[in-house]
Amino acid sequence: MEDFTYYNPTKIELGRDKENNIGEYIADAGIKKVLLLYGMGSIQKSGLYERIIASLKKAKIEFEVLGGVVSNPLLSKVNEAIKIAKDKKIEAVLAVGGGSVVDSAKAIAAGAKYDSDVWDFFIHKAQIKEALPVFTVMTLSAAASEMNGNSVVMNDETLQKYSIASVLVNPVVSVINPELIATVSKEYLAYSAVDVISHCIEIYFTASVHPNFNSRIVESIILSIMETTEILLEDPDNYDARAEFAWVAIQGLNGLTPAGTKGGTFPNHMIEHSLSALYNVAHGAGLAVVIPAWMKWYKGQNISQFKRFAKEIFKDSDADKGIEGLESWFKKIGAPTTLEELNIPRDAIDAIALNASETAKVWGFSELYPKETIAHILQKA
Amino acid sequence: MEDFTYYNPTKIELGRDKENNIGEYIADAGIKKVLLLYGMGSIQKSGLYERIIASLKKAKIEFEVLGGVVSNPLLSKVNEAIKIAKDKKIEAVLAVGGGSVVDSAKAIAAGAKYDSDVWDFFIHKAQIKEALPVFTVMTLSAAASEMNGNSVVMNDETLQKYSIASVLVNPVVSVINPELIATVSKEYLAYSAVDVISHCIEIYFTASVHPNFNSRIVESIILSIMETTEILLEDPDNYDARAEFAWVAIQGLNGLTPAGTKGGTFPNHMIEHSLSALYNVAHGAGLAVVIPAWMKWYKGQNISQFKRFAKEIFKDSDADKGIEGLESWFKKIGAPTTLEELNIPRDAIDAIALNASETAKVWGFSELYPKETIAHILQKA
Repeated sequence: MEDFTYYNPTKIELGRDKENNIGEYIADAGIKKVLLLYGMGSIQKSGLYERIIASLKKAKIEFEVLGGVVSNPLLSKVNEAIKIAKDKKIEAVLAVGGGSVVDSAKAIAAGAKYDSDVWDFFIHKAQIKEALPVFTVMTLSAAASEMNGNSVVMNDETLQKYSIASVLVNPVVSVINPELIATVSKEYLAYSAVDVISHCIEIYFTASVHPNFNSRIVESIILSIMETTEILLEDPDNYDARAEFAWVAIQGLNGLTPAGTKGGTFPNHMIEHSLSALYNVAHGAGLAVVIPAWMKWYKGQNISQFKRFAKEIFKDSDADKGIEGLESWFKKIGAPTTLEELNIPRDAIDAIALNASETAKVWGFSELYPKETIAHILQKA
Repeated sequence: MEDFTYYNPTKIELGRDKENNIGEYIADAGIKKVLLLYGMGSIQKSGLYERIIASLKKAKIEFEVLGGVVSNPLLSKVNEAIKIAKDKKIEAVLAVGGGSVVDSAKAIAAGAKYDSDVWDFFIHKAQIKEALPVFTVMTLSAAASEMNGNSVVMNDETLQKYSIASVLVNPVVSVINPELIATVSKEYLAYSAVDVISHCIEIYFTASVHPNFNSRIVESIILSIMETTEILLEDPDNYDARAEFAWVAIQGLNGLTPAGTKGGTFPNHMIEHSLSALYNVAHGAGLAVVIPAWMKWYKGQNISQFKRFAKEIFKDSDADKGIEGLESWFKKIGAPTTLEELNIPRDAIDAIALNASETAKVWGFSELYPKETIAHILQKA
């Protein structure tokens, strides 16, 4: 087992109606003024916006408001918000939405306490030393951004989709009311399931040190995500399945699965970020296309773990059956598994591979994933 | 799934030699003076004491020292330490040892910030509102006290072994160097394994709401504890198994397994606390005796979960085979499974049952466990 530091100080408040306490949670932290950040207005249609405002007012929290965060969130919006945060002396960022809104909030929180360009953190030119506190009310479960310090943002000038990771931007409190997530479409539920599974399998397959306990936890997460997804596709209002999905999704990327492992990489995310940077596909949809292709290519490099995966998840110890099983399950839940289904032409593969190979450099594994290798993997998609 | 709050702000530093950074970790928290608390002197023999002192001096942390904490830690020692903490204006408690030392440190931390008798917290006469920060360097893994807010202390006047639970006494930083734990005897390794398993199965069997994910996590913990225990009994110096055991033990009682469950109780702990209060047996040894007896008695109240346990842990879906399997495994690793092996006479059962029934009142489930029921369970031991 490799040495590690585990530290996750985010408080999770899971349950019905807990969004109505958000003002109180913020006030308890001694904060008097927040920036309320949200997406494309669904929270106004659902009435959630009004409830959040009412809770802030009740707790005497002042607020500025900024909407318009899109999926695959943009640096331009982050910079717009940082300016507001600095000008209006904002003390915390309250994200109401899914992973994109939370990821943006984290970048804003770091940028608001930094005198230069927030993109410096994403290209590893500077380290986050300080950040505003972040609070969240979740309307989508997948990214686990509600309980980690990760943020992925796309630079809309350079088309680079890069990330930061710092415990300083871990949310202080994240509210997860499964009822708020029940409005998510079946399509996005499927993408969410793929995303959670992707978080788990990256290190599971690529780490050079991977204790048995970590494998068991990953398998538990995958089995529970598959089980609850199938229940929810049949019965979207099943509260218990929705709640379990939400909590399990968090376990997929809150620091538990990699603790004690060594040498794991995130190749599927690396490649997918370029798909969505260049073609603006949903992250989970892009992953569903990349993962089976990557698995077929990578299998021989860790055959014992692929056999284990097949056995534990699909009750068949043939490694290929694990890959086929996962690909079939993606299809069954309605996720795409080919570039064609994403409307990405095959002659785009070179450009995607070039973009991804730049990410590989920033993430420090360009030797493992030169452009040609990435193109070769994408040919299988 | 039941509503819940999950909040565990303890930072875990796991790895070789990390105890040498303890002064730095404490200084990082802005603390200038600690009470160094330890047990019966094994840390002096091993040289750990000197390394801790050196680390504190290097970080310019002043310290007072108090040893002599025993297994089944005593309130009298806690009170002695609280007096020192108040008199010497101690700012934090540094526990170096196993669960008993850490549990004592938490009670001291709460008591040092309280004007009246610390026992008030244990008998639910007062609530913890404030506490000194706690830091730990672990020499034994089992209790998970290094990553939770629980403390069990025995009142040596009344022979009541009671507990507190507050996130305010969660350690700020816990150092786990698996090499420091490698000196634990095979006997105490076995007791530790039993203790971890006990933490997991209490809620697993007794909760009225228990999501599948929680069952999977519990089963993962139990399988990994059994696996690493067997490796360590053969090869005590196996670093990886020791590290995995230590980390898995923490997962057994850090808030993960009960999140989202409802109605779970801790009957085996309740009964065992009376065994060790009256007969001063090791906690894990007492549990190994109580658990099979309790399982035989309780089985019919949750037969489906007992069948699941048998299938997942012992590959046999007969509920009785799960109980027999666990009892046999306890014997195999050298844990006692009868009162006789603990040198507890059968005519002591009434007194133990009476003591435990008092705990049942404090813990709020005296209707489920009147004295007669507890005596009936102990007759099976």
